[in-house]
Amino acid sequence: MRGRPMDGGASSDTTASALSTTERVDGVLGDFFAEGKRRASLLGARYVDLWNVLERNSIGGKRFRPRMVVAAYEGLGGRDEDACAAVGAAFELLHTALIVHDDVIDRDFSRRGIPNVSGSYRDTATTAGFSTPAAEHRGMSAGVIAGDLALTGASRLLLAVTCEADVRARLLDVLDDAIFASAGGELLDVELSLAPEMPTVAEILEMERAKTAVYSFEAPLMAGAILAGADDAVVDALEAFGREVGIAYQIVDDLLGVYGVEEETGKTTLGDLREGKRTVLIAHAATTDEWFAIRPFIGKADLTREEAEHVRGRLDSCGSRALAERLIDEHAGRALAVLDSEVISNDLRDVLRPIVDTVLERTR
Amino acid sequence: MRGRPMDGGASSDTTASALSTTERVDGVLGDFFAEGKRRASLLGARYVDLWNVLERNSIGGKRFRPRMVVAAYEGLGGRDEDACAAVGAAFELLHTALIVHDDVIDRDFSRRGIPNVSGSYRDTATTAGFSTPAAEHRGMSAGVIAGDLALTGASRLLLAVTCEADVRARLLDVLDDAIFASAGGELLDVELSLAPEMPTVAEILEMERAKTAVYSFEAPLMAGAILAGADDAVVDALEAFGREVGIAYQIVDDLLGVYGVEEETGKTTLGDLREGKRTVLIAHAATTDEWFAIRPFIGKADLTREEAEHVRGRLDSCGSRALAERLIDEHAGRALAVLDSEVISNDLRDVLRPIVDTVLERTR
Repeated sequence: MRGRPMDGGASSDTTASALSTTERVDGVLGDFFAEGKRRASLLGARYVDLWNVLERNSIGGKRFRPRMVVAAYEGLGGRDEDACAAVGAAFELLHTALIVHDDVIDRDFSRRGIPNVSGSYRDTATTAGFSTPAAEHRGMSAGVIAGDLALTGASRLLLAVTCEADVRARLLDVLDDAIFASAGGELLDVELSLAPEMPTVAEILEMERAKTAVYSFEAPLMAGAILAGADDAVVDALEAFGREVGIAYQIVDDLLGVYGVEEETGKTTLGDLREGKRTVLIAHAATTDEWFAIRPFIGKADLTREEAEHVRGRLDSCGSRALAERLIDEHAGRALAVLDSEVISNDLRDVLRPIVDTVLERTR
Repeated sequence: MRGRPMDGGASSDTTASALSTTERVDGVLGDFFAEGKRRASLLGARYVDLWNVLERNSIGGKRFRPRMVVAAYEGLGGRDEDACAAVGAAFELLHTALIVHDDVIDRDFSRRGIPNVSGSYRDTATTAGFSTPAAEHRGMSAGVIAGDLALTGASRLLLAVTCEADVRARLLDVLDDAIFASAGGELLDVELSLAPEMPTVAEILEMERAKTAVYSFEAPLMAGAILAGADDAVVDALEAFGREVGIAYQIVDDLLGVYGVEEETGKTTLGDLREGKRTVLIAHAATTDEWFAIRPFIGKADLTREEAEHVRGRLDSCGSRALAERLIDEHAGRALAVLDSEVISNDLRDVLRPIVDTVLERTR
């Protein structure tokens, strides 16, 4: 199964005021965690510890989803930066919730080399002398609980946004749709990874869209537009734009997982192959004549760098890499086509186009 | 660790109109699940399956928490039965979310002898030929996801209640407080079960209150009062009443786990002892001179009926059972004392007193 992408991987700012927005978002989240710790202290130091660990797992990200909210909001002339930051913080906290539970499901104890919630709780138990199974169980338990708190917190942050009641209701609908899609995508990911037959490229794309693209692109862009009071036609256009650029992003992620430069992505390019992750590349390769030469190395836990290089060569020659690149261009092209719609103003186009560029730049 | 109580164990109705309220609550939940399945179908049959399994884990309960909402609401003269049922349904769905995640944390695959969400997903994987670890992992993954959906659903149901905006905001605060307390109680349960030293009786009671009593008694009673437009003094009194009766209920649960009549409770009276569950009984016994004769049997996975009978005798003679019974009487007495407050009307007292009676009757 795959990790949620973009927890720190996005590169440049998408809007001129992104820095101050990041600070505002950090401020909203800082207040949220301070209040959480204050309430937790009534139940004792152990609960405060969990809030501290959850907070550490939330800070330090590139605030990718808040920047989507800001791009749409400011591109549509929104002026209430505090409200915008609160909506952005809600999506950031949703991201935290989803990666914490995703790591529980994947039995991962670290993310980008740093212990996650489960890893922190496992490690302190290990240090205290507990057996590995007991320590890991403690870690997973803390992860389930912490994810629940972040998930609930995302709704609470949206409820507290200063705006018209009907706007808030629509924002809550968008958040609910995002959670609904992510849960379905996570389930599909679990099921596709267990299926005896290899999923199709279309199934992989549908799973990736539901699991990550909806809450990372579509929903925050729609939320920014709704907060700015945009017409339904604009909100719909942003949904379509977010869908296409989000799918492109996921395929880029699949490509970088095998072909990336480790110094740039911060991830090993052996991980996906060793894990046997079912990506667009692998789903396509399985339909080609060269699969016999690739298959033995997919999911090989001790795959060497030489074997990985062999697999890369085969994924090239059988056309899987070219297919992935073509799909990225197709979806990026459709995203750009949405921007040509007459309902998209020049200002909005100017803040959205760099998002596509950023996604494409990752592969170049 | 302990299971959430009252998932089917409560006995008689607490209000005259409880039957029709249960039907109304079932109707709200039925609509919720129908809508969930409709939306899930857009992502495919696998996601609809998860919603079906989640629904099966939600139906069939005694709707204990909705009946708390109804008792407070109708005792205070509330007349909007649909709004009341919607609030009750929200707390029922919260209950589903918490037990599904509690079972994931406890690695339980059944509840009251019936496969839970994790058990259903494990069992179909086992039937399909997967290894036990792979099947159990699938089960746990589905449990994490399904619990997230139910948790989100609880908020959504409250958001949809037809009432004044400020009333809805207060209801959402009560729900948030309940989730916050439950998460903290669940964490305490995990931590106390791992602690090298035996927790004190006070620590056990604090954990049991936070984990279960708040969301099962305090919060639904407060929500019913808030929906009925009650004064703050009444809401506060119901919180105090719910706290005391809820703690009494938890101690009864600890007693029944060892001394219950299996035909009545539906639970084996060996389970708590075999599991080594840290209850009020055990926490007290550990402070007595007879602990040396009890300790070897606590957490003994193959404890026999004869050994359990020996433990019961020792828990009697060392005073643990008497302490638990005294604590039950104390907390029930405090709950009844709250009902003597001048802010509690005769009508409200008449619907609340039977709740205390029901709790006490379980031990007699």
